[in-house]
Amino acid sequence: MGLKSKDLVGLHHVTAQEIELILDTAAPMKEIIKRNIKKVPTLRGRTVVTVFYEASTRTRTSFELAAKYLSADTVGIAVATSSVNKGESLKDTALNIAAMGADVVVLRHPMAGAAELLARTLDVSVINAGDGAHEHPSQALLDLFTVREKKGRLAGLKVAIIGDILHSRVARSDIWGYTKMGAEVYLAGPATLIPPGIEKMGARVCGSLEEALEGADVINILRIQLERQQQGLFPSLREYSRIFGLNSDRLKLAAPDALVMHPGPMNRGVEISPDVAYGQQSVINEQVTNGVAVRMALLYLLIGGGA
Amino acid sequence: MGLKSKDLVGLHHVTAQEIELILDTAAPMKEIIKRNIKKVPTLRGRTVVTVFYEASTRTRTSFELAAKYLSADTVGIAVATSSVNKGESLKDTALNIAAMGADVVVLRHPMAGAAELLARTLDVSVINAGDGAHEHPSQALLDLFTVREKKGRLAGLKVAIIGDILHSRVARSDIWGYTKMGAEVYLAGPATLIPPGIEKMGARVCGSLEEALEGADVINILRIQLERQQQGLFPSLREYSRIFGLNSDRLKLAAPDALVMHPGPMNRGVEISPDVAYGQQSVINEQVTNGVAVRMALLYLLIGGGA
Amino acid sequence: MGLKSKDLVGLHHVTAQEIELILDTAAPMKEIIKRNIKKVPTLRGRTVVTVFYEASTRTRTSFELAAKYLSADTVGIAVATSSVNKGESLKDTALNIAAMGADVVVLRHPMAGAAELLARTLDVSVINAGDGAHEHPSQALLDLFTVREKKGRLAGLKVAIIGDILHSRVARSDIWGYTKMGAEVYLAGPATLIPPGIEKMGARVCGSLEEALEGADVINILRIQLERQQQGLFPSLREYSRIFGLNSDRLKLAAPDALVMHPGPMNRGVEISPDVAYGQQSVINEQVTNGVAVRMALLYLLIGGGA
Repeated sequence: MGLKSKDLVGLHHVTAQEIELILDTAAPMKEIIKRNIKKVPTLRGRTVVTVFYEASTRTRTSFELAAKYLSADTVGIAVATSSVNKGESLKDTALNIAAMGADVVVLRHPMAGAAELLARTLDVSVINAGDGAHEHPSQALLDLFTVREKKGRLAGLKVAIIGDILHSRVARSDIWGYTKMGAEVYLAGPATLIPPGIEKMGARVCGSLEEALEGADVINILRIQLERQQQGLFPSLREYSRIFGLNSDRLKLAAPDALVMHPGPMNRGVEISPDVAYGQQSVINEQVTNGVAVRMALLYLLIGGGA
Repeated sequence: MGLKSKDLVGLHHVTAQEIELILDTAAPMKEIIKRNIKKVPTLRGRTVVTVFYEASTRTRTSFELAAKYLSADTVGIAVATSSVNKGESLKDTALNIAAMGADVVVLRHPMAGAAELLARTLDVSVINAGDGAHEHPSQALLDLFTVREKKGRLAGLKVAIIGDILHSRVARSDIWGYTKMGAEVYLAGPATLIPPGIEKMGARVCGSLEEALEGADVINILRIQLERQQQGLFPSLREYSRIFGLNSDRLKLAAPDALVMHPGPMNRGVEISPDVAYGQQSVINEQVTNGVAVRMALLYLLIGGGA
Repeated sequence: MGLKSKDLVGLHHVTAQEIELILDTAAPMKEIIKRNIKKVPTLRGRTVVTVFYEASTRTRTSFELAAKYLSADTVGIAVATSSVNKGESLKDTALNIAAMGADVVVLRHPMAGAAELLARTLDVSVINAGDGAHEHPSQALLDLFTVREKKGRLAGLKVAIIGDILHSRVARSDIWGYTKMGAEVYLAGPATLIPPGIEKMGARVCGSLEEALEGADVINILRIQLERQQQGLFPSLREYSRIFGLNSDRLKLAAPDALVMHPGPMNRGVEISPDVAYGQQSVINEQVTNGVAVRMALLYLLIGGGA
């Protein structure tokens, strides 16, 4: 009993049973992180190669530490995105890495579909660590893990996702994940940042932030990309914050024990106020620990079987 | 019985017997790479420091993985080349690395002779991972390994090397290596990119691509550097491809079982057509695996002895 | 019996007894570095994260190797300093790293006080690897270790520190360290580069280089930052070298067995002449080895206790 695919490209094609298996596997992994001696020999002799075509300290570091805690070797490759024919060079880069003996490639790439392309090309496992505005499944899985751990369940919860839905791979993976697990997802953000037809994914678009927050059990705040404002997609940071920023007053609209989540890095004072970000309902820091645990579980399930 | 020098600076001063020893050692190393658990404790407690004054993802990654599969520790140092007196700072950098306990320094540097300078300064081993247009011995060794593995021998083979011979450290190391092992090397490329006097190295310069390919057992395609065209060394990429690009028609000039090789990264459609690059005679991907095996052999032979 | 703090932020608040403990611990660590098999399992399963907001190959590499020789895992994070609110993002970055299971964070940051800020925020250990012009304690500890090893003692020695005292975190940590251990510190440099009131730290400001060198047992040459000249803080490199550069003639003013030290990287021909830098009295290269030993001692004392 394991994952059906050799890859994790997105949550779109993963079943609820598979998500549950990943979350169940992540729980003991979290215990390992909290130990004094964190190392277990589970993936000794396995090689994790991270290939990042976009800068990302925290996701890369999280995968690297997950690999090290399981005694896998890691090699990091940072690739400049200036090359002309990215699609092609990506394929050659991947073939190279596989030929060097990698067991899993963790890929971040600005192009939606890059991870799937790689997964089809390679015999070894591919984990999507973010492909354009498409998916970022390990982030969504750590969100699910955090909620399930705190709430004891996912089914039936009201989950609000607030911000730039249009450009957010986190939002897309979250929507697939939460809805598959039986939660109800409510979206709010500037009208220019809500993709048309998003309801087909099973989420509801709210007319206001307040409607999304009303009685919510979980609030997922997305990071606002400052360059979107220059593109005219919202008036100003001050305006954004005034209309869509989560502060302690608005938090009162949600359930009293609602969880506040953010994938980081935060623009404090913009999409979230500092008192909420560091407040009692915030599980933002715990999300980071859970991210390592979930990635340990993914590495174990994808490449640990035959050890 | 081992290598005479503590360093591998180039194939110029290495004997055929030493090359054979390296290739013989690389064969069991390749078996290790193909195992599920790739790690062997051979170089545990040894430290490999890669010092790259030029960007090179694939060579650096290949050395890093070679070290890790043998349980050596690795530290990577990427150095900007903007400093004024490179020669001097290189010496100080090297002294520092040696003083920190490194067992071997893997150096890539834009200046021909940099690795030899370092090897003379340091007591620890130095491996040249490319010095200007001078030598890139581990690349040539993996080429030799690949040919010997596929053909069962090197002596007596006709080897074509096609492209920018003038600026290619790979070509220079390949010529030393192939001729020492008894193969016959034929060179073809734009007249402006053939260094005068290259015949003294034991290779023959052909008047046309066709002459070099005729009956060849091995075809080594070099990477064309796009900036050379701006320097006026060949008319245009299209012209280059028309006259010197390897395609399936031209491949028929070679022996029916000729091997197609390329050190990567390829400019597909320029020096090599995609159907040839991924065709049945291509061993380009296998070269990559063999590169890790050859580098494992080098590390083992240079620093594994006293363990 | 150990260090009182979970962190090493600077030598200002460290006692002479604690410094002695660190130096005593570094001595056997140096033996490990010199072994053929350098690895000991002391910190197996511990995680050292280096966070560098300024480029620094040698300090980062030294900490990384120190960690690896003790079998700790290392992850490196290089952060661009372009972000607007550094102080805030530093805190979030640190909380993240701690949440991922790091046992110690090694921080270099352009802002004086950054390491102390971090140490207060985090439950895990913080080692200051340089914060603005404030402190660089591990550099000073390796200086102390080197002198004690060569001279057998620190108390009563005359120590000269020459150069840009104003901008040097090494000078500040050295002054705290040497004076706490009973040495007498004499400072010399351009008047524009001597901070007013520095005597309160227990050092004496000399009117000339010659006065500082006269009978000195130890000469610490600081690196001159070339951009200070553009800021008009000294007339020219030639002038600086003429008045404050250490050469073999001036070295004769010091005690016959005076040690010549430099934290590197050197501007040879500016603050130090090549014959002195590589001469018999120079211990510059040995400082590098001792740097790894001292950092091993720090890691061991800060996070090795409960293993």
